[in-house]
Amino acid sequence: MREFDLIARIRARCATRPDVLLGIGDDAALLQVPANVQLVVAMDTLNDGVHFPIDTAPADIGRKALAVNLSDLAAMGARPAWCTLSLSLPEADATWIDGFLDGFLELALMHDVALVGGDTTRGPLSICVTAHGLVEAGLALRRSGARVGDDIWISGTLGDAAGALAQLQAGNAVDPALHARLDRPVPRVALGRALRGIATACIDVSDGLLADLGHVCMASTVGAEVEIDALPASAALRSAFDEGSRRTLQATGGDDYELCFTTPAAMQTEVERAARAADVEIARIGRVVEGEGVAALDAGGKRWFPPRGGYAHFS
Amino acid sequence: MREFDLIARIRARCATRPDVLLGIGDDAALLQVPANVQLVVAMDTLNDGVHFPIDTAPADIGRKALAVNLSDLAAMGARPAWCTLSLSLPEADATWIDGFLDGFLELALMHDVALVGGDTTRGPLSICVTAHGLVEAGLALRRSGARVGDDIWISGTLGDAAGALAQLQAGNAVDPALHARLDRPVPRVALGRALRGIATACIDVSDGLLADLGHVCMASTVGAEVEIDALPASAALRSAFDEGSRRTLQATGGDDYELCFTTPAAMQTEVERAARAADVEIARIGRVVEGEGVAALDAGGKRWFPPRGGYAHFS
Repeated sequence: MREFDLIARIRARCATRPDVLLGIGDDAALLQVPANVQLVVAMDTLNDGVHFPIDTAPADIGRKALAVNLSDLAAMGARPAWCTLSLSLPEADATWIDGFLDGFLELALMHDVALVGGDTTRGPLSICVTAHGLVEAGLALRRSGARVGDDIWISGTLGDAAGALAQLQAGNAVDPALHARLDRPVPRVALGRALRGIATACIDVSDGLLADLGHVCMASTVGAEVEIDALPASAALRSAFDEGSRRTLQATGGDDYELCFTTPAAMQTEVERAARAADVEIARIGRVVEGEGVAALDAGGKRWFPPRGGYAHFS
Repeated sequence: MREFDLIARIRARCATRPDVLLGIGDDAALLQVPANVQLVVAMDTLNDGVHFPIDTAPADIGRKALAVNLSDLAAMGARPAWCTLSLSLPEADATWIDGFLDGFLELALMHDVALVGGDTTRGPLSICVTAHGLVEAGLALRRSGARVGDDIWISGTLGDAAGALAQLQAGNAVDPALHARLDRPVPRVALGRALRGIATACIDVSDGLLADLGHVCMASTVGAEVEIDALPASAALRSAFDEGSRRTLQATGGDDYELCFTTPAAMQTEVERAARAADVEIARIGRVVEGEGVAALDAGGKRWFPPRGGYAHFS
């Protein structure tokens, strides 16, 4: 398959939106941005064997490549709108492409995201996506707004994806529920939208809770205390790992794509209402304090330290 | 160097613009799009050994990664505004990064482009850039507007980059002027802007003139006749190659990043004025005709065929 056939194959399956004036097929996409909104742009790359195991199903690779970007838009409170895709492939295999598009476009359709352009090149398998979202002026969620006294919350459960990866890397059987969290992360778009005007700061957890909450603390010039026993765990994680391993996976494992956010303590009712509206479980896991850095505390109030740091690409 | 140090190193050197509400350092960039403009989005990836020779200088790789994207914005008549960068590196080498940024940021500054976000990952060397531009509503240049009777024009000279690549691949000494065209392409941003309201169609020549003009013909449902002797050649190309090789390089060689555009014959004065305003040489190389496809004609009006097709990533 030549490059133009490959692009035609992708183009034939793309949905569009009324605000896409020119999609795939010109030198660039041409898009109509509505008045009174701000543009939100996220860009994330997945590389073979680094961001997903080498034998991951093409549909799961496609879905995840978009999901991790939509997760960034969610953390800003943005409504997803458009995306571009750069696909580097060792060879243009039609079956692989079709599978990849199955996953990618299914998630795109679910969030009304139009694929409007990009690039296909020859090279080691690598998928780069730029996602564009829109947010009402002044309502974007940032990392920098956490205030001393705020509650700290997390959506969903933590450590499942890292648990699956640990099982894979140990050569053990992988629990299917954990494996699904690794291969098919769900971006918390509805929750991010519902938190506009409620959350003071927000981040998506991709590098591990303690590391990502640390970014919020640094951007907000505050500290955080997290109750290690309050971190939500799935039944699958509880049954697959002992308490020590589980805590480490929850506190430092990557690839959760849950939202960690802070809210004024007086807004608990609004927070819980937002989570119900978004149909997502949330748990209060700590509080914003003076100082800097994140302290994880056990039930006795003693400092808990993970045996090693969070996921770091260049460590 | 860890990923966060690498990002900090990039962030410290980035210029900003008043319309960047949030740049590098949050989950996504937050941008203010002015009223009455449309958003133009281009995304192009360069892979090591595919889009540049393996021993290309880091500064040239950085400059080219942005240049090929600005060239796409130029072909739309857009004013560049923001970009995001995804950098996959086998290792985080500070000297390499600094050199890469020298080239990337020099060109960004020249066009008032703010680097507002992106991603750094571990993997084979690959650079993916998404460039965002703005164009006044209704004035974007498209591939689809060429009309029968229009003149066809090209900026600059053709075949220089492909000539350098041919010399490299043959293991010969590479002419410095040709090498500069391969390593340091110049996006024709000012010309693209000057052609708003004048050009009926426009494309940037990255895959070879005949292939890219073919895209214009297909999008416009017209044909094109090109005078092979009218294609502009640099002195360096003329002295380095015989006429047959030179014609092939000019007509089918990739990586020119010149603008090929069509204009109504009655607008010749305006076209020449636009080129002078943009300080770019242009040459009239043919005309739009009924039918389909591109025919290259020699001085006697006979059809000329290249010995092989243009550059195709998956051929």
